[in-house]
Amino acid sequence: MATRRIERTQESRRLLVAAAAELFAEKGYRQTSFIDIAERAGISRGSIPWHFGNKLGLLQAVLDDRLHAVLTGFAPPDGERPGDPLDQAMDFIRLPGTRLFITLLAEAVEADSPIREHYARLHAALRQEVLARIPAGALPPGTTPEAFTVLLVGAVIGVHAQWRVAPEAVDLDAVHTAIRALLPAGPG
Amino acid sequence: MATRRIERTQESRRLLVAAAAELFAEKGYRQTSFIDIAERAGISRGSIPWHFGNKLGLLQAVLDDRLHAVLTGFAPPDGERPGDPLDQAMDFIRLPGTRLFITLLAEAVEADSPIREHYARLHAALRQEVLARIPAGALPPGTTPEAFTVLLVGAVIGVHAQWRVAPEAVDLDAVHTAIRALLPAGPG
Repeated sequence: MATRRIERTQESRRLLVAAAAELFAEKGYRQTSFIDIAERAGISRGSIPWHFGNKLGLLQAVLDDRLHAVLTGFAPPDGERPGDPLDQAMDFIRLPGTRLFITLLAEAVEADSPIREHYARLHAALRQEVLARIPAGALPPGTTPEAFTVLLVGAVIGVHAQWRVAPEAVDLDAVHTAIRALLPAGPG
Repeated sequence: MATRRIERTQESRRLLVAAAAELFAEKGYRQTSFIDIAERAGISRGSIPWHFGNKLGLLQAVLDDRLHAVLTGFAPPDGERPGDPLDQAMDFIRLPGTRLFITLLAEAVEADSPIREHYARLHAALRQEVLARIPAGALPPGTTPEAFTVLLVGAVIGVHAQWRVAPEAVDLDAVHTAIRALLPAGPG
């Protein structure tokens, strides 16, 4: 009985996070209400504060969920070979829900944004993954590993932006090959 | 007298575009009203439809103004040596008003966005500037000039995003040097 209750609770939480992620992507964070989210999830509105405290707590859960999806791709379960991070990033930007990162970026760069810190953590985590894979001494003279990392993570962010705006103008496979050719050594 | 009237009209238009650009960056396009814009510009609200038709017309004027600022940097007046486009792009992202491009990108990627087409034109214009400067045969095997161009424009867009989120984590000068080192030949 207790186990079933826990499962139901976890399922409610999962449905609310999924509904919020969809609505934040469609309408933006500020324009989305608890009523919208509860309706989309098919769950009582009163349960949202119980799960997440407030709307910011729910947004944090959404971003943590997406961040987790990104980072578990980089660090697979024990025994499995890690996937190639560039392949994963290029697959990730094609997912419909990834548009959310562009929508919320606009709110993250506002003065006193409550989600700036989440974006800072997300970008830092991505840079850390890339930085760990750059062999010392493999870069052009004058290029620091940190700067090269900002450039590579930036390329993926900015390719995503261009592709969302005009998919017909951006050949993601060809760009994937072009980014691959920049990497100093080995696959990824 | 007629000349003074034309000057006053042009000055009103300029003030309205400047006020709208500020407010769109602060509040987003959808959340900004004619009342907000008229108040900020110190100009009667009724003159906005006269100058721009509707809010979308005003947004178009704002984006055209910014696009013009970007592109005139690339193509200076007769007799002046064109500036280096990478230098110009890296200077451009440091301007406070450039944050507007991130704010409006979120609206540009929404379904049926009225400004998607403006972003498509802006990105295409930037890519065209870069593409014209890539010497044939200078790229790694398998890298097309078009894909390399998307990558470079993407790098600038995505570096801008990371820097706006966490300026202390992004050394723009070092990244500038790193992007420069990727360019196949000559200064830019």
